[in-house]
Amino acid sequence: APSAAPAAAAPPVANGTAARLPFEERAKAAQNAAGQRLLELMARKRSNLAVAADVADTAAMLRLADQVGPDICVFKTHVDIFSSWDAATGAELRRLADKHDFLVFEDRKFADIGNTVVAQYAGGVHRIADWSDLTNAHLVPGPGIIDGLRSVGGPRGHGLLLLAEMSSKGALATGAYTQAVAQAAAANQDFVMGFISQAPAKWPAPTPPGLVHMTPGVQLAAGGDALGQQYNTPASVIGAGGSDVIIVGRGIIKADDPAAAAARYRAAGWAAYEAALG
Amino acid sequence: APSAAPAAAAPPVANGTAARLPFEERAKAAQNAAGQRLLELMARKRSNLAVAADVADTAAMLRLADQVGPDICVFKTHVDIFSSWDAATGAELRRLADKHDFLVFEDRKFADIGNTVVAQYAGGVHRIADWSDLTNAHLVPGPGIIDGLRSVGGPRGHGLLLLAEMSSKGALATGAYTQAVAQAAAANQDFVMGFISQAPAKWPAPTPPGLVHMTPGVQLAAGGDALGQQYNTPASVIGAGGSDVIIVGRGIIKADDPAAAAARYRAAGWAAYEAALG
Repeated sequence: APSAAPAAAAPPVANGTAARLPFEERAKAAQNAAGQRLLELMARKRSNLAVAADVADTAAMLRLADQVGPDICVFKTHVDIFSSWDAATGAELRRLADKHDFLVFEDRKFADIGNTVVAQYAGGVHRIADWSDLTNAHLVPGPGIIDGLRSVGGPRGHGLLLLAEMSSKGALATGAYTQAVAQAAAANQDFVMGFISQAPAKWPAPTPPGLVHMTPGVQLAAGGDALGQQYNTPASVIGAGGSDVIIVGRGIIKADDPAAAAARYRAAGWAAYEAALG
Repeated sequence: APSAAPAAAAPPVANGTAARLPFEERAKAAQNAAGQRLLELMARKRSNLAVAADVADTAAMLRLADQVGPDICVFKTHVDIFSSWDAATGAELRRLADKHDFLVFEDRKFADIGNTVVAQYAGGVHRIADWSDLTNAHLVPGPGIIDGLRSVGGPRGHGLLLLAEMSSKGALATGAYTQAVAQAAAANQDFVMGFISQAPAKWPAPTPPGLVHMTPGVQLAAGGDALGQQYNTPASVIGAGGSDVIIVGRGIIKADDPAAAAARYRAAGWAAYEAALG
């Protein structure tokens, strides 16, 4: 019903992505090198699809990267679920990233104090900083975690996503927690390139245009699993939710034809982005 | 000064460890197998000292475990900082745990959705569930993370610590977050054996007596580092803080004689415990 005071009744402009500027415009506002590269490649490639490579082993991971590479902007890994890892695997993943023009995102969810994450990011069996373009972290330990990761990834041109919201039931990353994450990201845009979020449109204020929002738990059909994961659709995540990148796992990796599934999700994600631009 | 109404003026009994019962009494209240074993061995061995094995490689880790083993109740690892890992290293660590009577705690800080932590805990290069007695998790993703880890560690008699507070500057695990963790632990005592906390004595209510509090960032001299870590002393952590186990890293592993340093910390930690019992 029409309101007697439409201006006062209008919802605040708070879509989490600063009034839905096109990705190519937002690339100019990005202060982090990896964030800028990502926004540029999303516009160039016309893809806002990330695939979550939760597959059985590194051979399946590399095969998937080659299959879905043409349709994605980001390839998301959990390399700590594979029974083996070596530098050659990382190098081959980088070769595929160059071949298909995507960024590699190790979904490590760093969550320790600064001194410890330095060693976990740079070293260990996985040497995450050697082959990934971006990783992510929880802000639970405080801003020292950003400083620690920056000391490793900053000089290499890497970027960091902060977990602002999660898709799982009963997540504690809400309200004041989410706002503390938004503030820390805005204050550290040289290294923080964006967020893992669910619905930044519902946040009290838009985030800086150079920061990217990525949302996991996306399927073409909504639903959930037995361990608390809840799914949303590309249209709801990018449209009403105000996010930028859909992260799709089971909808692609469990498909009979992952490449064809990736093409479908890419089309759905990009259509939602273009609709949101208006 | 004596009060006219001493009962009303008395502070609430809220020391986080249910009125400082002795460890042998609390072992009877423990519902998790690893938690019960830990409380029993602390009483038997007269040690509430955990060492944080943040050393250069697995050889140094195993050497440290053998050096400090006689004085500790828990050996805490970050195996993802080592450039190599294999099943033989895990087996040797277990042999040392049996030789010296301590539990092995992989400080993984799991922080993902249930489905993912299942794979990270059971599998990967590190196969954490194969050689550790306990690990820990952030509750940020919601209770699904407990369910996921329980599905792997429960049948093996392992235990889980939830991160309720952190020692680093600006940590977001405070207030309502900490209380949500306390409630989730109390509701899942079959698998949750306790907390990583800072000062449970300041919490609004005591936690169940079968749950253990462990506190990192402990040194005989207070202070901090350049990446936000802040140190407390054994007496302050166990006494006024109301915790049970002191976790000591740099104060022991950087000492010229780690075994001698461990003996000093063990004595300080146990004296603080006995003083708290009254």
